[in-house]
Amino acid sequence: MSSNNQVSISSIITELIGHLGQLPGIGPKTAERLAFHIIKAPESKIIELSKSLEKSKQMLTFCKICFIVTENDPCSICTNEYRDKSVLCIVHDSIDAYAIENTNSYTGTYHILNGSISPINGIGPQELTISNLIERINKSTPKEIIIATNPTIEGDATSTYIINQITNNEIKISRLAIGIPIGGDLDYTDNKTLTQAFNSRQSIR
Amino acid sequence: MSSNNQVSISSIITELIGHLGQLPGIGPKTAERLAFHIIKAPESKIIELSKSLEKSKQMLTFCKICFIVTENDPCSICTNEYRDKSVLCIVHDSIDAYAIENTNSYTGTYHILNGSISPINGIGPQELTISNLIERINKSTPKEIIIATNPTIEGDATSTYIINQITNNEIKISRLAIGIPIGGDLDYTDNKTLTQAFNSRQSIR
Repeated sequence: MSSNNQVSISSIITELIGHLGQLPGIGPKTAERLAFHIIKAPESKIIELSKSLEKSKQMLTFCKICFIVTENDPCSICTNEYRDKSVLCIVHDSIDAYAIENTNSYTGTYHILNGSISPINGIGPQELTISNLIERINKSTPKEIIIATNPTIEGDATSTYIINQITNNEIKISRLAIGIPIGGDLDYTDNKTLTQAFNSRQSIR
Repeated sequence: MSSNNQVSISSIITELIGHLGQLPGIGPKTAERLAFHIIKAPESKIIELSKSLEKSKQMLTFCKICFIVTENDPCSICTNEYRDKSVLCIVHDSIDAYAIENTNSYTGTYHILNGSISPINGIGPQELTISNLIERINKSTPKEIIIATNPTIEGDATSTYIINQITNNEIKISRLAIGIPIGGDLDYTDNKTLTQAFNSRQSIR
């Protein structure tokens, strides 16, 4: 068939599909569906979304104390007088702190590493906010540090590195429990998690 | 716990997650991941996406001939001299025409219905572009009309309604073949499709 027969329906739609398809977890088909949904959606809704996207880029920054993504520096957690400043929870990313906040059960503060140690990806400790963390610990001497890095090889390496950097033996260091998730199925739990759940079993009586 | 302990990390992030979560097929968790991806992405990329969203709302319109979403009215298909104006493919939405265009195997024109007849949702024939279609057919008398509505109850009702409206018996009317998709599994094919595939079997020799 001659290429003259085939013309792009609309360069604006093709461009929109292209931009949407670059977002994580959005495949080409989903990008197409999203684009045609957006085309049909009320203009006000899409302008709101677009403004919200621009605002998030222009107004968000990092808290100079804990490095969380925030519009106020220092952030609303670090400046909140009701939060327990003597407990410090260390996470990879702001999204992890967000997940913990959503549980409504943690009242301490955070330290965001902005990634994990991963030699294969060229990320060493100096790429993360570990030196700031150590400085912060030496200055404020928290009572407890909760390491909440992901239970992966990289998360474990990061955790080990941080623990070695904390020289003050007075500080309690804990790590989130690893085990079977609620609603999980023993049969479908991977061997490592099951082994860990066995080893960390809690005595009942 | 006192509500004073818990503060929203950032109203801008919460707002962005809310807007993203309103898109079809984007659940709360995906919206959260997308939002934090956007926060980390280069500003230029997000500004491009945002501009592309606004442009799609401000510059797209409907072709007055075929009702496809387009930035040029009449659209680039209706005005393309290489497209076969004597063949008319009827589809529910612009996204369907887009899917057919992606096959690179159709050189005729389209008519977009902008939905399907669905009494349960209060959509009758007058809500669609059927009267425009009939007018168009009466004016240009195409050689063939390909009905490519979805093989669903609503698609079938729409198809039947349209066929009844076409009074010119000289016009060939066809419908897309229903059968087992390529790569499909007989065992996993639903009964109706399998029955249809049997009834529409093609003779080989």
